[in-house]
Formats: sequence, structure tokens, C-alpha cells
Amino acid sequence: MVGGELVGEPDLEITGVSEVQSGVPGTITFVHMPKYRQYLDTTQASAVLTGKDESLMNVNGIIAKNPTLAFSKILDYFAPEAGDSSGVHETAVVHSSASLGKDVTVGPFAVIEERVNIGDGAVIGPQCTIGRQSTVGQDSKLKSLVAIYSSCNIGRDVLIHSGTVIGCDGYGYATEGGAHLKIPQIGGIEIGDNVEIGANCTIDRGTIGNTVIGQGSKLDNLVHIAHNVKIGKGCLLTAQTAVAGSSVIGDYVAFGGKASVAGHLEVGDHAKLAAKSGVTKSLPGGEAYSGMPARKISEKNRQDAQISRLPEMAEKLKELEKRLDELKLDD
Amino acid sequence: MVGGELVGEPDLEITGVSEVQSGVPGTITFVHMPKYRQYLDTTQASAVLTGKDESLMNVNGIIAKNPTLAFSKILDYFAPEAGDSSGVHETAVVHSSASLGKDVTVGPFAVIEERVNIGDGAVIGPQCTIGRQSTVGQDSKLKSLVAIYSSCNIGRDVLIHSGTVIGCDGYGYATEGGAHLKIPQIGGIEIGDNVEIGANCTIDRGTIGNTVIGQGSKLDNLVHIAHNVKIGKGCLLTAQTAVAGSSVIGDYVAFGGKASVAGHLEVGDHAKLAAKSGVTKSLPGGEAYSGMPARKISEKNRQDAQISRLPEMAEKLKELEKRLDELKLDD
Amino acid sequence: MVGGELVGEPDLEITGVSEVQSGVPGTITFVHMPKYRQYLDTTQASAVLTGKDESLMNVNGIIAKNPTLAFSKILDYFAPEAGDSSGVHETAVVHSSASLGKDVTVGPFAVIEERVNIGDGAVIGPQCTIGRQSTVGQDSKLKSLVAIYSSCNIGRDVLIHSGTVIGCDGYGYATEGGAHLKIPQIGGIEIGDNVEIGANCTIDRGTIGNTVIGQGSKLDNLVHIAHNVKIGKGCLLTAQTAVAGSSVIGDYVAFGGKASVAGHLEVGDHAKLAAKSGVTKSLPGGEAYSGMPARKISEKNRQDAQISRLPEMAEKLKELEKRLDELKLDD
Repeated sequence: MVGGELVGEPDLEITGVSEVQSGVPGTITFVHMPKYRQYLDTTQASAVLTGKDESLMNVNGIIAKNPTLAFSKILDYFAPEAGDSSGVHETAVVHSSASLGKDVTVGPFAVIEERVNIGDGAVIGPQCTIGRQSTVGQDSKLKSLVAIYSSCNIGRDVLIHSGTVIGCDGYGYATEGGAHLKIPQIGGIEIGDNVEIGANCTIDRGTIGNTVIGQGSKLDNLVHIAHNVKIGKGCLLTAQTAVAGSSVIGDYVAFGGKASVAGHLEVGDHAKLAAKSGVTKSLPGGEAYSGMPARKISEKNRQDAQISRLPEMAEKLKELEKRLDELKLDD
Repeated sequence: MVGGELVGEPDLEITGVSEVQSGVPGTITFVHMPKYRQYLDTTQASAVLTGKDESLMNVNGIIAKNPTLAFSKILDYFAPEAGDSSGVHETAVVHSSASLGKDVTVGPFAVIEERVNIGDGAVIGPQCTIGRQSTVGQDSKLKSLVAIYSSCNIGRDVLIHSGTVIGCDGYGYATEGGAHLKIPQIGGIEIGDNVEIGANCTIDRGTIGNTVIGQGSKLDNLVHIAHNVKIGKGCLLTAQTAVAGSSVIGDYVAFGGKASVAGHLEVGDHAKLAAKSGVTKSLPGGEAYSGMPARKISEKNRQDAQISRLPEMAEKLKELEKRLDELKLDD
Repeated sequence: MVGGELVGEPDLEITGVSEVQSGVPGTITFVHMPKYRQYLDTTQASAVLTGKDESLMNVNGIIAKNPTLAFSKILDYFAPEAGDSSGVHETAVVHSSASLGKDVTVGPFAVIEERVNIGDGAVIGPQCTIGRQSTVGQDSKLKSLVAIYSSCNIGRDVLIHSGTVIGCDGYGYATEGGAHLKIPQIGGIEIGDNVEIGANCTIDRGTIGNTVIGQGSKLDNLVHIAHNVKIGKGCLLTAQTAVAGSSVIGDYVAFGGKASVAGHLEVGDHAKLAAKSGVTKSLPGGEAYSGMPARKISEKNRQDAQISRLPEMAEKLKELEKRLDELKLDD
């Protein structure tokens, strides 16, 4: 099933999954980082899945090329069955002009407004609101309490967690005579296929034009995407990250937790931003960046090393001064 | 309509708005930053709005004194009509002691508790909850899934986006014998007129007395305001900013993204806090601050420059040492 | 009632509580920090509660050993009565297989799914969703719009504020051929007794095994807890903090605002993390840490002092160089 090399007893029956620190007999566990190796000898789990750089001694298990992927397949196998489509709940308010595909589920107290289009097999959780003229693609799934504003396009196989708000107004004001006058936000939202968005995220609609999240990108919880931002394909944005207005993020960019990008910038493909880094100017792709303002990690490390040598430098300065003083005395 | 100087063809018909990078024939576009000037020659848009420091060559357009304001008016003109007041939805639960003004809209599944007061023309979106004795002023608008706790006062013409929570308990505990005992939070909330609050913000009620957001202040998404904070008039708090308990922010203070202020401090009028800055002591107004801990931007820049000269200083130290060594040898 | 030493008039009637800066006659106020002492002479409040290190001159009041605790008791006394249990609202959707204890309140539009178990006296606010097989302990209280996913265990006397999401999927993907494939998140959630969780927090379920919040811990608003994190007892996590996947936080750890811990680390009992600090390696307990990367506050302060002496060092370097140059000339 997972395509790895079997070690030990081939007929072992496995009925579930457990953590290596608290392994349960009859289950398979997973060791993917050196720090968890210490539990290998004592775990109660009956089998272990690991990668090629580990050796399994005196334990049953599987050695896989991509152990995370293999473990994912095992978890999938043991995951509880999702409920069948249960149709449109009798309490849901669905506008007569909305169009629902085949096998669509709509939970209790969901609100689906005018001319909304829901694709086949999509699941709209309890208490979601889908604003007028928005589209949810085939097999996409919204958990409970998701707010989609009007005129947002959500692709296929998208998963959106509870509390997330999509299509809220971008943050834009024209200031005149001390008053901040609201700039109408009349653009839209384009969420690509296979995107996952965590809980309590906020994705602003465009002022004009769309805010875009590219195909296969994954957002963790509490992520903020401002108006007219373009996120490429396959990006990973971990928790509490933020991208300010109109910035363009390439493909496969990875954000550490709380990393952020200022407005009107570009970040190139395959860039990596360390946790808490703050991008203040456009950065080429293919490099790792760290710090606030963000710079190449190698430069940042060099600078940090120099700062940590400051006491030594101060000592040396004193020493040289003393030697000079002595020289003077010698004169 | 927008009060600018017309350039080129005066009878041009404009039917919409588009971005300059992806201009659409028949629409007007907007160039307000030098980086977008490059698209001026090739945009398909039929007209361009810009400011006095730009010149429009070979294009139709408008030159405005405050181009952002002018563009805002154009967007407003082309914005889709908001729906008419549709009254109280049949599914909403409105307590008999609540008082609703004229032309109030209450969406599906909204809950309006005892003695709530909703002003004329206000719109309460789907699935909002307004706790008892709270007030929502005239023409204010709550999008879907907004939670207002009890005894909160929301002014006139206030706009609150989905997922925002107003009036939740301040974070206060008395610790005794290892247990953190909850300090009751019995104060309230005062939101001034013309305030806008983004999605998924949290504004804590006062412990005693009120938490206050001054008239015309604008909060972006995921902003946290702790108990008993006072925010002045016309402040701008961008995404993921935070103000800790009892701090007092003056008028027209601007927060960059993720900027924060510790508890029990004052920040003066017209102060500017750079993105990710952290205020750890009270700061006078009228200045720009940066860094953690926040200091005047000029000082911060000077310090950053000194840090970046560290390799040079280390070199110089080595050189002086070598010269001293040579002097010794000469002796 | 609060067990302190009475100063001045013993028969004074007190009818409420007010802030010292805006004291109201007939009320008692509270002075617990030196900065608020300035209001003592002019406050209109009729009595003052303070600690042993203050002296009350010419005012009525109480001097308490733990003044915060004493004030908490006073606030509790004057807090508005919570409503009586009002049973299950007629609009709530409660699955027939769910089990509800005695005196349970379920608000309008709440959804309680299959095999959910709600303890005696618990309150489920309006528009909450409790996913199947989840448990809410005795006397726990969920405010409005809380989302609990399936198979989450919430202890007794837990208070959860609006907009919080518990049990959403951990952020885990196996990347293969440029695609991020979702790792099923089939673990659970364990929230201990007496925990309070603020508004718009996100707590991810375990991948396998549980994410755990220990007894008596208190989370402020917008806090993110990733999958398989273990938080000990009595921890304080202020607003916008985050703990990344699988990290283990000891007992009584205190997080300043926006502090965060990277994945797979340990932080020892009674550690204190300053606001905005970022923990990037495991840290022993009983110490205070600051900065990004977080280090002991004493070291951090020493380093900051050295950085602030940089201009002085640069001056000294120049001076030594000049003296050396002069020596050369003398030769």
C-alpha cells in the first residue's frame, strides 16, 4: 500500500496508528526526526515506519523512500469515514436563484445568497454564509462558520476551515481634511484548485482586479492576505503570516510562522522566509531569508556572529589602548 | 464628479474600472506610485487617473489633486448597488424587549438579545449575535458572523467585518496559591462614529470603565485591542497589530502591520509605528518609531548602520593590533 | 468579604466600582501600580483598595495582602447576574444521539452533532457547532460562534470565547512531485479543567495522539496552538502568541504578547517569554527569555548595551588609529 521495504514479521496485523512516545500495541508508529529515535527501543507500538537513513533493529516495520508520504497514506487508511452527502439541511436558507450541483451538502443554518454556484459534491458546513454571485468548485469543503463575501471564486477540491473570512474589504482609505474616506473595494477573489486555508484566516478582496491564491497553496491558521495580493502555486504559509497589499509572491514560496511581506513587493519562486522575518524590499527567489528587515540567511548569520563577538572586540580595544598608553610612557 | 483636470478626449465614455497592469478597454485605471508608471504606455484601459506630479502623454485621463480620493469616488460610482433594506429575516431571533429603528435589516439566523437598541438604517448581517443591552448606531453595518457581547455601544456609520468579536472578556487574573482566578470584566465598549473594523478582530471589554475606539479610526484584520485601551480619533491600525491593556493611543496614530504596544503606556498624537515595531515605554507624538524595542527611526537607522559596519571595525582593530605589534618589534 | 485592613470610615456604603482616573462617588476604586497613585488625591471615588506598600492618607479604603485578588472579589460581587439556565432553544439542532446533562443551556442556532456529550450546567452559546463525539464538561461555557470539531474533549469549568476554533486540522503535508499532499489529522484535543480560551483562537487537533492544554491555563485572544502541542498546567499565553507543532510547554510558563515557540522543542516549567520573543531551541525552565532568537534576558540586555555602545567604540577606534599615526610620525 505505501510502497516501502518490509522489515521483520510480514504477517503482522496492524489495527491503528499511535505516537512513538506513547505507542499502543497492535498499531504502527512513525519516526522521522532524530529526536524521536530514543523511543524506538521502548515503544509499545508493534511496527515502525521510517526513512532510508534509519535502520530498524529488532523491530517490525517499513522503510520508505518518502516516509512522510507513506505515513500519510497509512493515516488516510485508518481515518474515520467522512459522512455521506446528507443533502441540504432543512434549516439552511438557499436563495432560489442559487445553483447547486449533484450530491451537494449544505449544513444547518447555512445561508446561500443570490446566484451562488456550488459545484458537484461540495460540502458547505453549518452556519456558513456564501455571498451573492460567489462560486464554490466541485468537491470543495467549507467547515462550519466560514464567511464568503459576494463575487468570490473558490476552485475545486479546496478545503476551508472554520472562522475564515474570504472577500472582506481591502484596507484602503483616501485621507482628506483629517478624515479617512473609504475606498470602495469592488474587485474579487480567486482561490485556485487544491488550496487549503486554515481557521480564522482573512483574505481581502481586490480593490479592482482580484486577490489570488494559486493552485495547491496551503495556508495555516490566522493568516492575513491583503487586497490584490497574488500568491503563486504550491506556496506554504504557516500560522500568523501576512502579505500586505498588492505584493506578488512566486510559486513554492515557504513562509515560517509570523513571517510577513510589506506592500507592493515581489518575492521570487522557491524563496524561503524564516519565522518572524519581515520582507521590506523585493527579494529574488531560490534563497532563504531571515530577520527584520529580511536578508539572506548567510548574511544574517554572519552579522549575528559579529554581534556576539562584540564583548571580545571591546576587550581588544581596551588592550590596544593600554599598550598604546604604555608605549607613550616608554617614550 | 471627481474635480480634476481633464486631459485628452472629453467625451470618452467610461463603463468601469480596471488595474493598469491588466487594463480593459472602455475602463479608467489609476496610477499612483512610480512603479506602476511602466504600464502607462501599454495599458488597454481607455483613460488614466493620476496625480499632479505625473504627466499624461498621448493618453486620455484626469489629473487630480488628491488622486486617491478621486479614484475612490470613481470606484464608488461603479460599485454594485447595495441591496435595499430587506427588513428582519423570518429566521432571526429578536427579543421582544429589543428596539429596532426604521429600515433596519436583520439577516438570517441573527440573534438580538434583551434590550438591544438598533438605530435607523442599520444592517445586522446573517448569524450575528448582539448581546443584551448593546447598542448599534444609525446606518452602521455588521457583516455576517459578528459577535457583540452585552453592554457594548457601537456608534453611527460603523462598519464591522465578519468574524470580529467585540466585548469579550479582558485578560485578567489574580494568582493565589498557583491558581489563576478570573477577575470579572464588568466594564463596557465604546466604538465611535465612522469606525471601520476588519475581519476576525478582537476587542476586549473594560475591567471597569470602557475600552474605547475613537471616531473615524480604522482597524484592519486580526487586530487585538485589550481591556481598557483608549484609541484616539482617526487612528490607522493595520493587520495583526495589538494594543495591550490600559494603554492610551492618541489621535491619528498610524500602526504598521504587526506593530504592538505593551500595557499601561501612552503613545502621543500623530506618532507612526513601523511594521513589527514593539512599543515598551511611553512615546511622544509626532515622531516615527521602529524596531523592538521601538525607538525613533533616525536612531534605529543609525544603529543599524553601525551594526552593518561591524566587519569594517573588526578589520580596523586587527590592523591597529598588527601596527602595534610591529612597533614593539621596532623597539 | 475581601479580607484586608480597613482604613477610615467603616460604615461607608459602596454601590459599585469605578476607575481611579474617572472615579465615581459612592464607588470603590483600585490602585495597584505606582503610575495610578497620582489620581489618589483627586479621584471622586469614595473608597480605594490597594496593597500593603501603599499608604492611604485622608481617604477611606482597604489595604489587602493580594490586592488584585481582593479587587477581583469586589468585581465579582458587583457583576451583573448571569441569566438562569434557559434550556435548549427551540431553533437549536441537537442530534438524537447526543447526551445533554441537567440544566444545560443551548442557544439559538447551535448545532450539536452525533454522540456529543454535554455535562450538567454547561452553556453552549448561540451559533456554536459541536462536532460528533466531542465532550463538553460540567459547567463549561461556550460563548457565541464557537466551532468545536469532532472528537474533542473539553474539561469542566472551561470558558471559551466567541470565534474560537478547536480541533481544526494540523498543518501537515507530504510533498511529492511538487504537490503538497494532505496528511490526515486523526488525533484529538484534550482541554483541561478551568482553562479559559479567548476570542478567535485556533487549536489544531493532533495528527495522531492529542493536542493538550493543561488544567488552569489561560489563553488570550488570537492565540494559535498547533497539532500535538502539549501545554502544561497554569500557563499564561497572552494575545497573538503561537506554539508550533509537537512542542512541549511545561507548567506555569508565561508568554508575553506575540511570543512564539518553533516546532518540536521543550520549554521548562516557570519559564517566562518576553513579548515578541521567538524560541528556536529548547529552553530550561525558571528563567526569563527575550528576543529573536530568544536568549536569557540578562544576556540579551548585555548584548543590547554593547550594541548601544557601538558609536563609542567607533570613536575609540578612530582615536587609537590617530595616536598610532602620530607615533609613526614621531619615529
